[in-house]
Amino acid sequence: MNPAWIPAQPGMALEDVDTPALLLDLDLFERNLRRLANAAAAARVRLRPHAKSHKCVEIARRQIAAGAVGICCQKVSEAAAFVAAGVNDVLITNEVVGARKLARLAQLAAAHPQARLGVCVEDAEVARALGAACREADAWLDVYVEADVGHGRAGVPDADTLIDIARAVVAQPRLTFMGLHAYHGSAQHLRGVAERRAAIGAAVQKAAGYRAALRAAELPCEVVTGAGTGSFIYEAASGVYTEIQPGSYALMDADYARNEADANAPQFAQALFVFASALSVRGDRVTLDAGLKALAVDSGPPQPAFAGWSVAGVSDEHTVLRRSGDGPALKLGDKALLIPGHCDPTVNLHDWIVAVRGNVVEAVWPVDARGAVF
Amino acid sequence: MNPAWIPAQPGMALEDVDTPALLLDLDLFERNLRRLANAAAAARVRLRPHAKSHKCVEIARRQIAAGAVGICCQKVSEAAAFVAAGVNDVLITNEVVGARKLARLAQLAAAHPQARLGVCVEDAEVARALGAACREADAWLDVYVEADVGHGRAGVPDADTLIDIARAVVAQPRLTFMGLHAYHGSAQHLRGVAERRAAIGAAVQKAAGYRAALRAAELPCEVVTGAGTGSFIYEAASGVYTEIQPGSYALMDADYARNEADANAPQFAQALFVFASALSVRGDRVTLDAGLKALAVDSGPPQPAFAGWSVAGVSDEHTVLRRSGDGPALKLGDKALLIPGHCDPTVNLHDWIVAVRGNVVEAVWPVDARGAVF
Repeated sequence: MNPAWIPAQPGMALEDVDTPALLLDLDLFERNLRRLANAAAAARVRLRPHAKSHKCVEIARRQIAAGAVGICCQKVSEAAAFVAAGVNDVLITNEVVGARKLARLAQLAAAHPQARLGVCVEDAEVARALGAACREADAWLDVYVEADVGHGRAGVPDADTLIDIARAVVAQPRLTFMGLHAYHGSAQHLRGVAERRAAIGAAVQKAAGYRAALRAAELPCEVVTGAGTGSFIYEAASGVYTEIQPGSYALMDADYARNEADANAPQFAQALFVFASALSVRGDRVTLDAGLKALAVDSGPPQPAFAGWSVAGVSDEHTVLRRSGDGPALKLGDKALLIPGHCDPTVNLHDWIVAVRGNVVEAVWPVDARGAVF
Repeated sequence: MNPAWIPAQPGMALEDVDTPALLLDLDLFERNLRRLANAAAAARVRLRPHAKSHKCVEIARRQIAAGAVGICCQKVSEAAAFVAAGVNDVLITNEVVGARKLARLAQLAAAHPQARLGVCVEDAEVARALGAACREADAWLDVYVEADVGHGRAGVPDADTLIDIARAVVAQPRLTFMGLHAYHGSAQHLRGVAERRAAIGAAVQKAAGYRAALRAAELPCEVVTGAGTGSFIYEAASGVYTEIQPGSYALMDADYARNEADANAPQFAQALFVFASALSVRGDRVTLDAGLKALAVDSGPPQPAFAGWSVAGVSDEHTVLRRSGDGPALKLGDKALLIPGHCDPTVNLHDWIVAVRGNVVEAVWPVDARGAVF
């Protein structure tokens, strides 16, 4: 994060922002925050937004100010960036494996006794190693057992395994067993409302079964946490999930825009853009100065935020647009807004978020946990 | 680049390197450097490797020590990282547009009078603005006119335009017109030898025609520069190109491995890997702790660097492997090598390159220009 290359300063006009820059439309962003907070409050579930989408302390603070109980992270190093900045309730919704990583997690918790830190496990040996690391570091941690409720990645696949792991957690004096992490990731991007609802219906049934199995084994299950931007209204209404974790809702992306909207769900606006300059104009072909190092394409190419142009290609440092209709004329040096295909890995490419209201830069926020992969 | 999270220290055993980490096999990397340097020397062309692939000052120094005349960059901020570290011959193989960027380029050149800095233009107005920025900053720059020789992105499409722009450059006292930038990017990944050779044959013809037009207009054309890892032997043998710019050859990736090898070309070994840990093992499904934030997938998913396993999916923080044959058993916490689909944007995700010889870490190098998009 080289301060010499900050793309903007507060008070600057939008058109003067250096490119490629990550822009956040503050009016739309704030509305997204309010809409989710209202939906969570109405459903009486706790809201713990996922900070892997934005990696930005200032956004986390605003989410918490809007009613979130804390945030989720994916990595120990990511959690460290937020805890160090005073975000005091962080759940790592991922497994942490290996002696070095477990020790660093325990040291992070010990160094910040005012913070509540949680983590997922899906293996009894890891639970014991985590308990030992906490004893060694004089730390305390909340622990959730991750259940596979349909995603098919990590997570325990059956109640017997779940109970074994939960018992291993409960046996560790330094660990507090909180309940279930039950996230159905792939359901988020099922396009149709009916398929998403059905996938989450099945996930809820599995989570309910796991919770019942824990209770039958006289184990606590205070929290069932999970859900993303594409599905959270179903988890929130389930009576089983006590906490939801959407992340993308604050920013949004072209991939989520391809989901069929559920009329019962709050609608979130595209608030995140990549701002790029035309460095070549040849007839109906315009080359912009933002490519794969400014825009993640894992969920498809970026989309122009204006009609009449389409993306013909994305390479390391360039996006090529072609006029496909009655689009605005673009001339050399003109700046254009692109909608990223996928917000999370796009944000992770940038060091700064330029927060804009109307056509004026209001603030420039560091992407504090950019590159926090450990 | 948070020094608290450096994944390794020199002398550490490979198995102790924290994950996900970018690993460089030094023996293979050094052999790649020697093979290209030998090929360039044999063809009597200057070698200016592209540093957009590695963004690492230490790698640039080693390329220059192995015979390169300097390096290429794509961005002013990227060039700044190399020039500040003492790399004294840098060509920005890209257009720079807009008053702020032109001023920063001129200021960079003025601040480093010992360095030779070049840049591409494809517009006469930009050439004049660049000349004015150099006068203002008391700077001198080399300028190349970019010719479109088949890639269809930026670059002038005809000789008359080329001559107009070259004249505009020559008219600026602070700019030295060096010749043609003629890079056929999309030819690099044509799979068959015959198609790549034919595409470059056409590019060479165009470049030769442009050079002849410049000479007929009594303009100089000292340098014709271009070429990448997939095609450089054809440009080098053309008698037209005087300089080649391969970048990926030092590291390599799964995408280049899909090219049919030309028996007349030096072969480059896969020297770059992402090192990842198994954080979940469920039967034949293993989840690794490296995802889209550690591995670019624009040219396809990563490939396991070992037989018997294939990639079933890549998400933000995870790569899921499935056993597809007689692969090695993987247990929880095991560390595995993945071959990135595309090296350039993968390196850009990391802050550190862990340089390994055999099974021991020899050095850890910063990715100095990581995120240098401006």
